[in-house]
Amino acid sequence: MRMAGTAERMAKNQKQVAISEFFEKNKHFLGFDSLTRSLITAVKEAVDNSLDACEEARILPEVRIQITKIDDKKNIVELKSEDNGPGIPQRSIEKVFGQLLFGSRFHAIRQSRGQQGIGITGVVMYSQLTTGRKTHVRSKIATEASAAIVDIGLDTRKNKATKSNETREIWELEDGSFKEHGLEITTRMKAKYQKGRQSVYQYLRMTSIVNPHADITFTDPEGQVHHWARVTERLPTKVESIKPHPHGIHLGTLQRMCSESTDSRMTVFLRNNFSGMSTRAAKELLQVAEISEKAKPKSLKPEQYRALLEAFQGERMLNNKPVKLLNPPTNCLSPIEELLIKKGLSKTIDSRFVTTMTRAPTVTQGNPYQVEVGLIFGEGMLADKPVEVLRFANRVPLMYQQGGCLLTKAIESVDWRQYGLDQAGGRGVPKGPAAILVHLASTNVQFTSEAKEALADNSEVMDETRKALLEMGRGLRKHLEKKKKMAKTQEKFELVNDIIPAIAQKSAEILGRPIPELSGSITKIMSAVIAESETLWNKETKQTDISITLFNYTSRARSYTLLASWPEREGATMENNNTGGRKEATGVWAWKLETLDPGQTYVIKFSLAGLEKGDWTDTDVFFRGSQDVIGATKMDEKLLEEIRRQEAAANGDEEEEAADEIPIEESKPLPAPEVPPPNGQQTLFGGGE
Amino acid sequence: MRMAGTAERMAKNQKQVAISEFFEKNKHFLGFDSLTRSLITAVKEAVDNSLDACEEARILPEVRIQITKIDDKKNIVELKSEDNGPGIPQRSIEKVFGQLLFGSRFHAIRQSRGQQGIGITGVVMYSQLTTGRKTHVRSKIATEASAAIVDIGLDTRKNKATKSNETREIWELEDGSFKEHGLEITTRMKAKYQKGRQSVYQYLRMTSIVNPHADITFTDPEGQVHHWARVTERLPTKVESIKPHPHGIHLGTLQRMCSESTDSRMTVFLRNNFSGMSTRAAKELLQVAEISEKAKPKSLKPEQYRALLEAFQGERMLNNKPVKLLNPPTNCLSPIEELLIKKGLSKTIDSRFVTTMTRAPTVTQGNPYQVEVGLIFGEGMLADKPVEVLRFANRVPLMYQQGGCLLTKAIESVDWRQYGLDQAGGRGVPKGPAAILVHLASTNVQFTSEAKEALADNSEVMDETRKALLEMGRGLRKHLEKKKKMAKTQEKFELVNDIIPAIAQKSAEILGRPIPELSGSITKIMSAVIAESETLWNKETKQTDISITLFNYTSRARSYTLLASWPEREGATMENNNTGGRKEATGVWAWKLETLDPGQTYVIKFSLAGLEKGDWTDTDVFFRGSQDVIGATKMDEKLLEEIRRQEAAANGDEEEEAADEIPIEESKPLPAPEVPPPNGQQTLFGGGE
Repeated sequence: MRMAGTAERMAKNQKQVAISEFFEKNKHFLGFDSLTRSLITAVKEAVDNSLDACEEARILPEVRIQITKIDDKKNIVELKSEDNGPGIPQRSIEKVFGQLLFGSRFHAIRQSRGQQGIGITGVVMYSQLTTGRKTHVRSKIATEASAAIVDIGLDTRKNKATKSNETREIWELEDGSFKEHGLEITTRMKAKYQKGRQSVYQYLRMTSIVNPHADITFTDPEGQVHHWARVTERLPTKVESIKPHPHGIHLGTLQRMCSESTDSRMTVFLRNNFSGMSTRAAKELLQVAEISEKAKPKSLKPEQYRALLEAFQGERMLNNKPVKLLNPPTNCLSPIEELLIKKGLSKTIDSRFVTTMTRAPTVTQGNPYQVEVGLIFGEGMLADKPVEVLRFANRVPLMYQQGGCLLTKAIESVDWRQYGLDQAGGRGVPKGPAAILVHLASTNVQFTSEAKEALADNSEVMDETRKALLEMGRGLRKHLEKKKKMAKTQEKFELVNDIIPAIAQKSAEILGRPIPELSGSITKIMSAVIAESETLWNKETKQTDISITLFNYTSRARSYTLLASWPEREGATMENNNTGGRKEATGVWAWKLETLDPGQTYVIKFSLAGLEKGDWTDTDVFFRGSQDVIGATKMDEKLLEEIRRQEAAANGDEEEEAADEIPIEESKPLPAPEVPPPNGQQTLFGGGE
Repeated sequence: MRMAGTAERMAKNQKQVAISEFFEKNKHFLGFDSLTRSLITAVKEAVDNSLDACEEARILPEVRIQITKIDDKKNIVELKSEDNGPGIPQRSIEKVFGQLLFGSRFHAIRQSRGQQGIGITGVVMYSQLTTGRKTHVRSKIATEASAAIVDIGLDTRKNKATKSNETREIWELEDGSFKEHGLEITTRMKAKYQKGRQSVYQYLRMTSIVNPHADITFTDPEGQVHHWARVTERLPTKVESIKPHPHGIHLGTLQRMCSESTDSRMTVFLRNNFSGMSTRAAKELLQVAEISEKAKPKSLKPEQYRALLEAFQGERMLNNKPVKLLNPPTNCLSPIEELLIKKGLSKTIDSRFVTTMTRAPTVTQGNPYQVEVGLIFGEGMLADKPVEVLRFANRVPLMYQQGGCLLTKAIESVDWRQYGLDQAGGRGVPKGPAAILVHLASTNVQFTSEAKEALADNSEVMDETRKALLEMGRGLRKHLEKKKKMAKTQEKFELVNDIIPAIAQKSAEILGRPIPELSGSITKIMSAVIAESETLWNKETKQTDISITLFNYTSRARSYTLLASWPEREGATMENNNTGGRKEATGVWAWKLETLDPGQTYVIKFSLAGLEKGDWTDTDVFFRGSQDVIGATKMDEKLLEEIRRQEAAANGDEEEEAADEIPIEESKPLPAPEVPPPNGQQTLFGGGE
C-alpha cells in the first residue's frame, strides 16, 4: 500500500536544533527585527548588563555609549559601550558573550534587568550574522593588573563561543591613569541610527529617569555628547535572592525539587527550600497532606506530591482553614521610590505638578512584585494629544508594543475623566498636558516575548497597577480642585477687597461721613479660613524654605492643629523651625494653634536641609479642627495611625516571625489584594502638591 | 580595596541553562499563559501536527479532538487528540514529544504549520508541570502490525524525554476494524474550557475554513459533538523544500555555508546551494565579486564573503546593473486558493456577497510568500460593530494579540470608507456587516513570539497585504454600486411600466380612443440595455444552472459580445450551453450577439457540472460594445490579455530558464512589487458578485 515507509521516511529527516540556531533564525524574538530597532536592542542589552553588574557589586555606575557610522550606504554601525563595573574574569568572558542561556540570574529569585542569559550573546550573534565580525571585549577586574582582551564570536550550530586575538593589556585611560575595573564592548552590526520617540537617545533618557543613581554619557554619530548626570549618590537597595514561595510552585517543579533533594526529612526540606515557611507551617502542611514529618523528600510518591501541593494552595485545610503561610520577603525587590521618581520626572520633563505613588510589595503566584506610578501635569505639554506613557520593568524602559502591554492596558482601563483628563468614552489613553509613568519591579517579569518589549497579561498585576493609578488620579483631582477652589477664593477675596472699600468710600463721600471700619464686614462676606503654603529653593543657603500662612476671614475665633508633610524618610532635616510643634509620625510635623482671632494671620516658617534643588517643590498642608480650611486637607487619622503602625513594625515593636516578611490575612492560593487597600507603604505624599 | 574578588564571586554563580528550563520558566512564550488559553494552545499544537503530517504523507486528514473535565474545582482537563496521519515510528516518539527543538522542519524552506520543533513538546511539558503526569501516546505506522504505546515526560534539566509503560498493542477501532495508521495523544493539564470568541470551538471552526480538505470532529466537555466535514477531496498542493535564495542570506550564514561546504569549486557551490541561480548568474556573481570560479568555497577569505554578499545584493554590479537572479520557485507554497476560501467562508458564515483575492507569490528577504484575502458582506451580520477579522498564517488561525498583528495593521491602514464601509477617520478596523479574512502563506512566517499569535512587522508583506485588500475593496465597491444601480433601474422600470400604461389608458378613455402601442415610448424613457444573471443550484441534476438575460430598452438595435466568468480552473465543466459561443481564456466564455433590436430580449443558459452546492453562487457578466450595459462590466481587455499570457507561460510556450520560477524585472536586493500590480494570478473573479 501507498503508506508503506512514509512514517519512517518522515522520521528520518528529524534532528535536534541548537538554541543558538533557533534564535539566529528568530532573531526578531530578541528585538533584532529592523535596522533601527536592532541598534536600540544592542544598546539596551549592554546598558542592562552594566547597571546590573554595578548594582550587584555596589558600584555607582558610569556608563558610556558611543555610536559611530562606519558605512552609511551599507548601514554598518559601530557600538562601543564602556562601564566601571566589576569586569568579567578572563575565563568567563567567552561564556558570557558567546553562549546563549548562560548566566547567573536564571534561577535566582530577585529583581534584576537581565534574567535569561540571552541578551548580550544575542548582540554578538547579530553582529556576526550581519557583518561577519566578532565582538571585541576588554575586561578589567580589580584583582588583576592588566585587562583581558579577546574577540568573541558564536558557533551557532553548537551554541559555543569562538574566540581570537586573545591577549592581556594595561588599560590606560585618557587622563593617563589606569582603569581599576570595568568592561568595554566594541561591536559592528548592520543597523541604523535615528532620532525621535524610538531612539537610542530616548532609551538612555528614559533609563536615566528610573536609574537616578547612574551617570550616563552618550556620544551620537554626529559627535554630539549627551550627558545625564546622576541625581542621587544612593545606590538602589541591595536585592537578595529569595527561595521560591509555596504559592507559586507548580506540581512538576515540586516533584523535581523533591527528587533532587538530599534533605533527610520533609520538615527540613520545606524549611530549607521555601520562603514564607515557618516550622509551624511546615508541620501543619505535612499534617494536612498526610505525609510523615520524617519522610524522605526523595522517596515521596506522586499522590503525596499532589497532596502537598494542595496543602500549599489551601485546597487541603486544617480545621477548615488553609495553612497560614507568610508572604515571601520583599528584600528581593528594589523600587525606585517616590522622591526619586519625582526627581527623575521633574528633571527630564519640565512641568509644575508631579505626583507619585509606590504601592506596597505584594505577591503573584509566589513572586513578589511592586508597582510604582508617577504623573506629571502642567504647562508646556500638549493638551490635545494623548498623554505620554512611560513604561518600565525592573528599571528598564519599554519602548515598543505599547498597545499590547499590560501597563498600557491598566492606564487605558481607568476612567481618567473623573480625575480631570480628557478621555473619549472613558477608556483608552487619556488626553491632556501630562505624562504617566508606570514601573513594575518584580522577581519574575513576564514579558510577551524574549524581546522584552511588553508585559504579558496577569490579572493581579493589572489590578495592583490600576489601584496605584486610581490613587494617583485622586491626587491629581485633589490638586486640580484645590487649584480651582483657591483661584475662586482668591477672586472673591480680591473682589471683596476692591469693591467694598470702594462702595464704602463712595457712600461716605455722598453722605459726608467718615469711611467705616470694614475688616469685620469683609471677614463676614469671605467667611473662610485660608491656608497658603509656599515652597522655595534658597540658592544661598542651599535649603528649601517653606512658609505656611493661615488667614482667619471668619467672624469667630478658630482653633486648629496644622500639619505638614516633609521628606524625613528621604533624609531631609528640619531647620529654623521657630514656631515649634512636634513630630506626629515620620514625615509629618504638627503645630497647635490655640486661638486664631477673626482677621488674624498666623505664619509658620521652616527650612529643609539635606536636599537638592528640585527634590521638594510642594508641601502638603493638613488640618485638624471642626471648620474647613481652604488650601489644606482634613487629616485622615486612620491613615496616620496606619503609618505609625508600620513604623512600629519596621522598628521591630511587633512580634513578627521574620522582620522582613510582611504579614497577610490568611493563606489563600493566590491572595488578591483587598479593596480598599490598607496599603503597606501608604504615605501622605501620594497626592501631594 | 573593596572590589577585590567581586568579579570572581559573581562569575562563579553563572551556569548554562537548558532550553527546556528556559521555556518551562517562560511557558507564556509558548502560549501557556492562562488556563483558557493553555487549552487552546494544546489543541492547536496537536491539530497543527496532525494536519502537517497528513499533508506531507498525502493523506486526507481526519482529526478528532475530545476534551473532558476531570476535576472541575481544580481545573484539571483531559485532552485527547486522534488523527489518521502516517503515525510516528516507535523509536522517534520520545524525541518528537519529549525534546524541545527537535523536528524536521527547522532547516527546510517550505510552507508548514510547525517549524521549530517546540509545539507538542511544550504541551507535554505544560501537562507535566501542572499535573505531574506524562502524556500518553499511541502511534500506528502502516508497515507494522501493532501500535506503539508509551507515556512521555520531559527532564527539563537536560531537555530529554523520560518514558514509562512502553508497550505494543493492536489498535482496534470502535467498529471492530483495525487502525491502519495514525496517532493518538492523551494528556491532562491544568486548564479551563470556555466558549466564545477565543475558544477551542472557534479555533477548530476557523481551522476548517482554511483547511477545507480536513474533516474535524470535536467532542466538548458536555459531550456535544461538533463536526466540520471536508468540503473538498483535493489535498493542498504538495509543497517542496527549496534552497535559500541569495537575496535572503546574511553574511554570517554565507560564511558558515562556505566553510561547511565540500564542493570543489565556487560555481558548483553556488548552483548547488541556492535557488534562483543559473550557471550564467553564478559566473557573473563570481566575476563582480572578483572570486575565481575555481576557488574552493572552504578557503574563501572574509573580504571575499563580503564581496560575494555584495554581489548577491546588487551592491556590486556588472555594467552598472545588478546580476540578474531568478526569484525562488514558489512550489514551496500552498495557498488555499480563491474558490476554496469562498467555499469555506460561505459555509461557515451565512451571507450573500463573498469576494476573494489570491495575490501572486512574491519574495521578501529571499523567502517566498503569498497573501490571500477574503471578504464576506451581507445580511445577518451586525452593521454597527467592527467587522470580524479572521487572521491566518500557513493555514493556522491566529486568535490572540489581534491589535499587534501585521495583518490587522494592514486592514487598519486601508481607508474603507471609499469601499462602502464605515470607518471613523478612515483608519482602524472598519464597521459594517462584514468579515475580512487574511491569510499569509510563507516559508518563514515571522511571528512576534513563539506563541505564534501575531505576525511581526515587515514592510513588504504589509504592502502586499494592503494591495490585496485594496483590490478586494474595489470589488466590494463595484458590488455595492452595481446593486445600487440595479435597484435604481429596477425602480425606474417598474415606475415606467406602471405609470405610462395607466396614463395611456386614462387618456384613451377620456378621449374615447384605443390605447396606443407603448413599448416604444417605454423603451425611449428607459433608454438602457440591462443584463440580469441568475446562478442557482439544481438539486436534481446536481449542477449549477446559470441564466443571463439581456434586455434592449433603447430605441436602437444593439450589438454586443457578452462574456461570463466560470470556474474552469477549479475543474468545473460547462454543460447544456445551447447558445454556443467560444472560450476567450481559461474561465472566460464569450457569446457574440450580432443584433438585439429595440425591445428585444436575449437569453443565455448553461449549467456547470463537477461542483458542489455553494461552490459557485454568482456569475460575473462582462460585455464588449460601445454602449453601457447595466448589470454587466465592460471587459478589461488588458487584464484578459494578461490572463492569456500567463496561460501561455504556464503551458511552456515562453522561453523561461526554469518553468516553475517566476521572472522578475531586475535583480534588486529586495524587489518590491510594482504599483499598480500586473498581478501574476489575477483572475476575473476578484471582485465578482
